Amino acid sequence: MSGEDAPAQQQNAEEQKQQQQQQESKTPAESPKTESKPDPPPSSASTEAAAADTPAPAAEKAPEEDTFSYRALVLTGYGGYDKVKLQVKKGKPALKSGEVMVRVKMCGLNFADLMARQGLYDRLPSPPVTPGMECSGIIEAVGEDVTDRKVGDKVLVLNRSGMWQEVVVVATTHTFLMPEGMSFEEAAALPVNYITAYLMLFDFGHLRPNQSVLIHMAAGGVGIAATQLCKTVNDVTVFGTASASKHEVISQGGVTHTIDYRTRDYVEEIRKISPKGLDIVLDPLGGSDTHKGYNLLKPMGKLVSYGAANMLAGQKKNLFVVAKTWYQQFSVHTLSLIQGNRSVCGFHLGYLDSETELIAQAMAAVMDLYRQGKIKPRIDSTYHLEQVGDAMRRMQERNNIGKIILTTEPMKEEEKKEEAKKDEEKKKDDKKKDDKKKEDKKKDDAKKDDKKAEEKEEAKKEEN
Amino acid sequence: MSGEDAPAQQQNAEEQKQQQQQQESKTPAESPKTESKPDPPPSSASTEAAAADTPAPAAEKAPEEDTFSYRALVLTGYGGYDKVKLQVKKGKPALKSGEVMVRVKMCGLNFADLMARQGLYDRLPSPPVTPGMECSGIIEAVGEDVTDRKVGDKVLVLNRSGMWQEVVVVATTHTFLMPEGMSFEEAAALPVNYITAYLMLFDFGHLRPNQSVLIHMAAGGVGIAATQLCKTVNDVTVFGTASASKHEVISQGGVTHTIDYRTRDYVEEIRKISPKGLDIVLDPLGGSDTHKGYNLLKPMGKLVSYGAANMLAGQKKNLFVVAKTWYQQFSVHTLSLIQGNRSVCGFHLGYLDSETELIAQAMAAVMDLYRQGKIKPRIDSTYHLEQVGDAMRRMQERNNIGKIILTTEPMKEEEKKEEAKKDEEKKKDDKKKDDKKKEDKKKDDAKKDDKKAEEKEEAKKEEN
Ligand SMILES: NC(=O)c1ccc[n+]([C@@H]2O[C@H](COP(=O)([O-])OP(=O)(O)OC[C@H]3O[C@@H](n4cnc5c(N)ncnc54)[C@H](OP(=O)(O)O)[C@@H]3O)[C@@H](O)[C@H]2O)c1
Ligand SMILES: NC(=O)c1ccc[n+]([C@@H]2O[C@H](COP(=O)([O-])OP(=O)(O)OC[C@H]3O[C@@H](n4cnc5c(N)ncnc54)[C@H](OP(=O)(O)O)[C@@H]3O)[C@@H](O)[C@H]2O)c1
Repeated sequence: MSGEDAPAQQQNAEEQKQQQQQQESKTPAESPKTESKPDPPPSSASTEAAAADTPAPAAEKAPEEDTFSYRALVLTGYGGYDKVKLQVKKGKPALKSGEVMVRVKMCGLNFADLMARQGLYDRLPSPPVTPGMECSGIIEAVGEDVTDRKVGDKVLVLNRSGMWQEVVVVATTHTFLMPEGMSFEEAAALPVNYITAYLMLFDFGHLRPNQSVLIHMAAGGVGIAATQLCKTVNDVTVFGTASASKHEVISQGGVTHTIDYRTRDYVEEIRKISPKGLDIVLDPLGGSDTHKGYNLLKPMGKLVSYGAANMLAGQKKNLFVVAKTWYQQFSVHTLSLIQGNRSVCGFHLGYLDSETELIAQAMAAVMDLYRQGKIKPRIDSTYHLEQVGDAMRRMQERNNIGKIILTTEPMKEEEKKEEAKKDEEKKKDDKKKDDKKKEDKKKDDAKKDDKKAEEKEEAKKEEN
Repeated sequence: MSGEDAPAQQQNAEEQKQQQQQQESKTPAESPKTESKPDPPPSSASTEAAAADTPAPAAEKAPEEDTFSYRALVLTGYGGYDKVKLQVKKGKPALKSGEVMVRVKMCGLNFADLMARQGLYDRLPSPPVTPGMECSGIIEAVGEDVTDRKVGDKVLVLNRSGMWQEVVVVATTHTFLMPEGMSFEEAAALPVNYITAYLMLFDFGHLRPNQSVLIHMAAGGVGIAATQLCKTVNDVTVFGTASASKHEVISQGGVTHTIDYRTRDYVEEIRKISPKGLDIVLDPLGGSDTHKGYNLLKPMGKLVSYGAANMLAGQKKNLFVVAKTWYQQFSVHTLSLIQGNRSVCGFHLGYLDSETELIAQAMAAVMDLYRQGKIKPRIDSTYHLEQVGDAMRRMQERNNIGKIILTTEPMKEEEKKEEAKKDEEKKKDDKKKDDKKKEDKKKDDAKKDDKKAEEKEEAKKEEN
């Protein structure tokens, strides 16, 4: 892997060039492909070895293959924001039959990318690896037997991983033509959120007019997609939980009843309005919230579990929180389901990799709705690849309303200097926060000790 | 409760009259209602006491109220076929607001009635109680505020219990007008089986073209209904398990692949044809079959659990079999559901009592399909109320193809004599079977003893 393991934010174009040159002199010219090939998409992984053995059309190596390079984000290990680094990959990736090469414009950030960075997402191959499940861009080359895509086509791409880089190679079945009028931002914001929301609401949920739906994280990527899809059905009541500052936006977006889960008991709030319960509960939280969701179901109600956001607390993995969420994981007996006339479903797009037909059908339906103006991804903010840490922080600290996008467009020099300054401040800030935490803990421990002492005192008194 | 606790098959009209007269002389004329009122439907149960306190329109008692009597099947206790007895109830049931009185023509027998007789069905009130969840008939009287039904209307009725008698009183919301051209047999065969199959396939299952469905007990009431409903959707592949003798009929009825579960491993058979698995599994069996069904699901597949037929073995409750089925009951973690993209649903019509709107919608859809000629209940056989034991035996011994119906039409004298003879033979037959079982067990035990002896011998040899 070429490129250096420095935090993305700190790496400027000058440095990159230097590194590149160093790498080029170090790396034997005969083997650039293995050295610098991007992480292969899973669809082609199995045929990899075979392809390498076949000399055929790639045998006469074009000089371009040596000079071809592109920037890529790489997860270098599990941990905090700085574990995702901007690197330069070298060598033109080989195109197998049925594959296309895409020059990436925009990438989507997903909650799973935060989980993945902490080692909590099982569908990302082990580091070092390029994360990213979706992007948009323009087709730059097509492999043999590709008839449904041509150079210049604008596409959006959905893949298990490897999308956070300037150039990606994927099976055509993982690409979808962008409809007229769709921006690259929108295209990168659409695949994961809308396919997920669509299959949950309409396949598992079988949403119909007059029904009621609970959407957690209603101001997030999936949340806004789900709300918009609910609105395509007549008279659906949407309960949406989100931090209070986002309520106005999501109300306008279609949430009927907004609930600030941080200050209120959402179960109580829902029961007040809908004493009989709900038809569909979408549960991205896991742990004790799955139990709550299940108990909120009406007869013939459906709970769709599709995440464990509750496992995430802070920048680095918090083992206590992970263990607690895990321990509280929901399990159910058929007897309970039968007596309640309920359904519990699990959804994971990452495990639908090979279900190309299913995904294509859902995508076609979603695209149709986009063309009719019934759905439209809401972009929260766009970051340069260099700023991936900031992007992740924004989501982690619960500040986004809608989708966070990464753009491959290079950062301007002045922007970079600005960033470097901000970075320093952020680091100081983080340190302060850490120190405060430690301080608080000390105080807390001291208080506990005091309390223990008091209790002992109390006990003694009682004894006498 | 009037009437005597003799097995239904043995009770002839003569005896009934005698009993009736005896009862009439014993029972004080002032309180016939409490003595002989039919088991109230659950919808009115809670208002019962209040109604009895209110003298209002029923205060001036018509003489008819004393002489009014009707035959009713009554479950007198848990056990074998003879626990359901034909009795005579006396006194005209009071009609509350929103209720209608129906003169019953035909009743449907359901698998749950077999379970109920053994004390394995929790939605039937404790004995003595009149079982039966569905019937068809003609409206004989309407209560106050009833505007959507009139005397003379032909209706089918769906209720939690109490339908196996000549006269029933239910809330109008539990009655549905029979479409033109529907026979009373069909009308009594339709509610439970078709509403169950409809909600499972289309609400939980969200069945769509090109999908595949596993239907167990495919030649039974629900099985045939489900098969017909599958056929209303394009290119659905139906796997149906049933005893071999029924395969021809169910093939003609629309089952694509018939499987004799008694001689073959159905999981293997299905995997051979559908290696990727199934979209929907309807599971009325419970126990280990639920696990098998779950493992047969494709991504986005749905398992609907709706019964525990495996608990039933023989005429009387078999505690070992019950415990085993119970012990093997399926339970699932959300993690497994998420990783498999699967859904597990539980369905129980008996717990949808108060969901009148939901049921009405499903019934309307089913009636529409009937009118279009797309579904048609298949009647296996029709029995007199006196023959309820035979009817149950036919289902229990796995001989029915389609629905078993009970008719309220009185039996002719010669028929009764025939029956009495057959009954004697059956009893002898049952005794022979019992004796054979005992004999077999003795032999078995003897063999086991022999084997143990051999093993001991063997062990001794090895020791030396
Ligand atoms: N199974 C699948 O295939 C699949 C696919 C896509 C997404 N998902 C799941 O869907 C959920 C939403 O994903 P997304 O990508 O659209 O993200 P998102 O909703 O944009 O996530 C960010 C928001 O989540 C809320 N939140 C709740 N708990 C949080 C926590 N512990 N840490 C940080 N933020 C938290 C915060 O908003 P508020 O405070 O305003 O609520 C935050 O702004 C995630 O659980 C994700 O794993 C699953
Ligand atoms: N949850 C609900 O709301 C609901 C509503 C209706 C029915 N159900 C369930 O659906 C299933 C079918 O009910 P149904 O009323 O339509 O009955 P049915 O299918 O007509 O039942 C009789 C048939 O079941 C098969 N069978 C399988 N295991 C059996 C056993 N242990 N004992 C006797 N027969 C057995 C036999 O046929 P083969 O040998 O040919 O298979 C037999 O002919 C039952 O499990 C019932 O509890 C549930």
